[in-house]
Amino acid sequence: MQIENINLSQYPGSTKKYVEGKLHPIKVAMREVHQHPTVKIENGKRIETPNEPITIYDTSGPYTDPSIKIDINKGLPRNREKWIEERNDTVILEDITSQYGKARRDNSNLDIIRFPIFHKPRVAKEGHRVTQLHYARKGIITPEMEYVAIRENLDNESRGIKTYITPEFVRDEVASGRAIIAANINHPEAEPMIIGRAFAVKLNTNIGNSALSSGIEEEVAKAVWSCYWGGDTLMDLSTGDNIHETREWIIRNCPVPVGTVPIYQALEKVNGKVKDLTWEIYRDTLIEQCEQGVDYFTIHAGVLKEHAKLVQERLTGCVSRGGSIMTQWCVEHNQESFLFEHFEEICEILNKYDVAVSLGDGMRPGSTHDANDRAQFLELEVLGKLTEIAWKHEVQVIIEGPGHVPMHKIKINMDKQIEACHGAPFYTLGPLTTDIAPGYDHITSAIGAAMISWYGTAMICYVTPKEHLSLPNLNDVRDGVIAYKVAAHAADLAKQLPGADVRDDALSKARYEFRWKDQFNLSLDPERAMQYYLESRRNAPEADDKFCTMCGPNFCAMRISQNIAESCPE
Amino acid sequence: MQIENINLSQYPGSTKKYVEGKLHPIKVAMREVHQHPTVKIENGKRIETPNEPITIYDTSGPYTDPSIKIDINKGLPRNREKWIEERNDTVILEDITSQYGKARRDNSNLDIIRFPIFHKPRVAKEGHRVTQLHYARKGIITPEMEYVAIRENLDNESRGIKTYITPEFVRDEVASGRAIIAANINHPEAEPMIIGRAFAVKLNTNIGNSALSSGIEEEVAKAVWSCYWGGDTLMDLSTGDNIHETREWIIRNCPVPVGTVPIYQALEKVNGKVKDLTWEIYRDTLIEQCEQGVDYFTIHAGVLKEHAKLVQERLTGCVSRGGSIMTQWCVEHNQESFLFEHFEEICEILNKYDVAVSLGDGMRPGSTHDANDRAQFLELEVLGKLTEIAWKHEVQVIIEGPGHVPMHKIKINMDKQIEACHGAPFYTLGPLTTDIAPGYDHITSAIGAAMISWYGTAMICYVTPKEHLSLPNLNDVRDGVIAYKVAAHAADLAKQLPGADVRDDALSKARYEFRWKDQFNLSLDPERAMQYYLESRRNAPEADDKFCTMCGPNFCAMRISQNIAESCPE
Repeated sequence: MQIENINLSQYPGSTKKYVEGKLHPIKVAMREVHQHPTVKIENGKRIETPNEPITIYDTSGPYTDPSIKIDINKGLPRNREKWIEERNDTVILEDITSQYGKARRDNSNLDIIRFPIFHKPRVAKEGHRVTQLHYARKGIITPEMEYVAIRENLDNESRGIKTYITPEFVRDEVASGRAIIAANINHPEAEPMIIGRAFAVKLNTNIGNSALSSGIEEEVAKAVWSCYWGGDTLMDLSTGDNIHETREWIIRNCPVPVGTVPIYQALEKVNGKVKDLTWEIYRDTLIEQCEQGVDYFTIHAGVLKEHAKLVQERLTGCVSRGGSIMTQWCVEHNQESFLFEHFEEICEILNKYDVAVSLGDGMRPGSTHDANDRAQFLELEVLGKLTEIAWKHEVQVIIEGPGHVPMHKIKINMDKQIEACHGAPFYTLGPLTTDIAPGYDHITSAIGAAMISWYGTAMICYVTPKEHLSLPNLNDVRDGVIAYKVAAHAADLAKQLPGADVRDDALSKARYEFRWKDQFNLSLDPERAMQYYLESRRNAPEADDKFCTMCGPNFCAMRISQNIAESCPE
Repeated sequence: MQIENINLSQYPGSTKKYVEGKLHPIKVAMREVHQHPTVKIENGKRIETPNEPITIYDTSGPYTDPSIKIDINKGLPRNREKWIEERNDTVILEDITSQYGKARRDNSNLDIIRFPIFHKPRVAKEGHRVTQLHYARKGIITPEMEYVAIRENLDNESRGIKTYITPEFVRDEVASGRAIIAANINHPEAEPMIIGRAFAVKLNTNIGNSALSSGIEEEVAKAVWSCYWGGDTLMDLSTGDNIHETREWIIRNCPVPVGTVPIYQALEKVNGKVKDLTWEIYRDTLIEQCEQGVDYFTIHAGVLKEHAKLVQERLTGCVSRGGSIMTQWCVEHNQESFLFEHFEEICEILNKYDVAVSLGDGMRPGSTHDANDRAQFLELEVLGKLTEIAWKHEVQVIIEGPGHVPMHKIKINMDKQIEACHGAPFYTLGPLTTDIAPGYDHITSAIGAAMISWYGTAMICYVTPKEHLSLPNLNDVRDGVIAYKVAAHAADLAKQLPGADVRDDALSKARYEFRWKDQFNLSLDPERAMQYYLESRRNAPEADDKFCTMCGPNFCAMRISQNIAESCPE
């Protein structure tokens, strides 16, 4: 199978730049937005004062580097491969391990949808653990750690902005479990990034087909599109056909870490019959996905048999797919969850590939009514215990959080999570602050996401306008990502992250000086800002640029304000 | 001139209902959303349990009452006229007072754009004040006060929800200045509503033409449209041609209070030359608009001469149009603001018509950089002093607030406002929590608006996706209103306003029970929710309804959850 190549437009007014490492031979990708000079007319003379370029965190990977030829049918460059190789603690397997994976491979009917290149999987050498947490505890600053330290700081150093984020600081945060670098050794295409409270807030996007929709080509396009707009990680939540093959295409072409919920695929393997799920099938699925290169797994190991009855007390029961599957399994077998029972074994698989675990909140509230109830907080306690187990096995951990929570109940979620889970990063879905706006849940949830990120959540999972109604299309992905970039950045400002305000100040200065193009180029969505602006200019194409398009020339506060500044008595 | 009639579609699954007053012969309009029964199959038998209708605050006025014939060329029914008449403290003038107004009237060239009916203006009898604040202080519960008490409570009483909002409580809040009922005696078409911290958070929408755009028909359509989607008040910010005639059309057809910024029109009268503005022109403009029926005026009387130099310290100067005009006037005349100097006289005009004053924040920050700076907070102190003066003259007051403010600096704005302005209601524009998202400022600002409303802001001024870029069209008005309905309602939930969660719980229950139509009908935008849902169903028209359209049948958490509830051991 060959699918159509993806050629994204370059970000306007921007160039890719690479900052070199000092400890390791690494090149950290960033985006630089160039600005026009500030122009003043004094005594009839035009005086130009240059404006420095602004450096922006860039999640788009090689797609926006015109010097790299993108070929979706070959996958992205595997830059991290040599870093892993050099650690000399892994081996390359001759064959994949998963029974299911082998069966898929040997099924020639699938050839027409298969990714054309097979990369042999890599695994830790016998007796080794290859997680960033393992290295960090040993005091090793990996290339990945230096990479994220440089990446988080952008151009703080050259601006003289004091920062606490050094490679050693990164190592310490990872060692303590307060941050993770999700980086499977089988996903060397991904650029390292960090998830932790001390760093810029990250956002995850969800894509994936369901029985109702969507083919491989469409999902790969969504994945790349989400990175282009600013998605920091990507979860493939496919539940329909050909999950295995779809995921391969996505991972090979994805410059950000990829997460999955393995129980979805395990359930497909037993034709959707929850009762038929077994630990063996699940285990095979984990290994299958570890060897493909999934960077983190959502595992609903905190949903226990005893929680099932609490679901009945709720207005909206259990709205987590994984959570409801596991609850049903426990009820039908009258047995404790196999995810909980086998959690140590799971960790021993994950630490051989450096797959992080994202402890799923199977009991997250599905309505503001159910927020902060017993089911939710009891599960959080269990997640805290599982965190300790994962750390014992040197597996990196993040904790998933709600859901639907009214504003006054948000902060307690953060406080309880930090305490129960010993500082492991929190990763929340919104929360949605009201239930009454289907069609606008990117907004109901951006409010909650901004607040909880300010309080300390490290990563927020986007919600698109189609939440509760349908799977998102490309435009919904864009709307969802931008709404969450807004929330994440608003939180970075509120957290007073070093340098977070540089972009705001540059954009506001450009706005005040009527440097329209600079304003657009510095914005989260230059294309849309430009489009809205041009729509209004159709009515006045001859007008000069020195006024705001909302107010017209006489009523432009900024223009008047500049006149005042020039004429004001000292 | 005749313009095309406006016929809005009825809200789906809803009927208009009227609740009668106990103290006064009033009928308070509300909307009732009907629900389908909950259906269960037990032992092969279909069991239906009815779901009560849900009552919703309704800002759409007669437009959604099929028993009332709408004729835009005649204006809305003038229901409040008899309440005012019965107070016996007003007289009807034979002619309008404003010189400018007379000149417009006598200009036959304007006949083709003039509203067809002339209503003689009403004014307080000599020596009388006719403000709701005046009545409240005298211990009188007006029909307006009873109206808003009933309106705020919806069906709390029949649900057994305890409420503190009684007619006497409303009177007390108005008397203390903590709430206002903006209700010009010359705008009897408007349905009374209340703005105050103890009540549901309200939202204002801005419409109005500029030199670059938009005619009368379009502005009236926007006004009605904004009420349909949930705007509680409406500001006509026109700065282009025919402001006087445009406003007449809007007021006569607007079921919610209308606000203006009179300095805009005053400036048009001097052809945009700030220096030529005079107190006399401004005064004539106030009277012109009082007699048309404007319910509240934004007056930038807190911008003082001494503040001008502070503008220079800022990244983005002065971004308030009124504020920048007055600053320029002060600088050019080297004289104190005539709004400040004549503020007592202004109040004595306003209290003869019951026009409320909205003290403009001319120094609001136009970038997160300038938030909470000296210029802003110095002005707030002046607004506090002006509040006391207005109250002395029994004029109702609200205070305008920012602007652009990062999240960690929002709360102090609320706290300072309450203190400086003695509890007068706060009315904020957003605030926008980051500057970097032109095209998405309905979202950057919905975050700030939700938070500041939770902290105590009584009314929020909407921001549309076109903010900073262009004037909003109909679709932008809808997007802006819904984003702000989200923010306002999220705040009502967080404030734990009695009964605020009834709609959320009903919608969530409908969602959980797969009563899709009820879910849509209870939502803020039923049309869009339905549209998104149907888009996804095109792919599976034969599927039954008992699963979420995002996940498909096997992975529907809510379906699984219901199965568990049915099979779970007690």
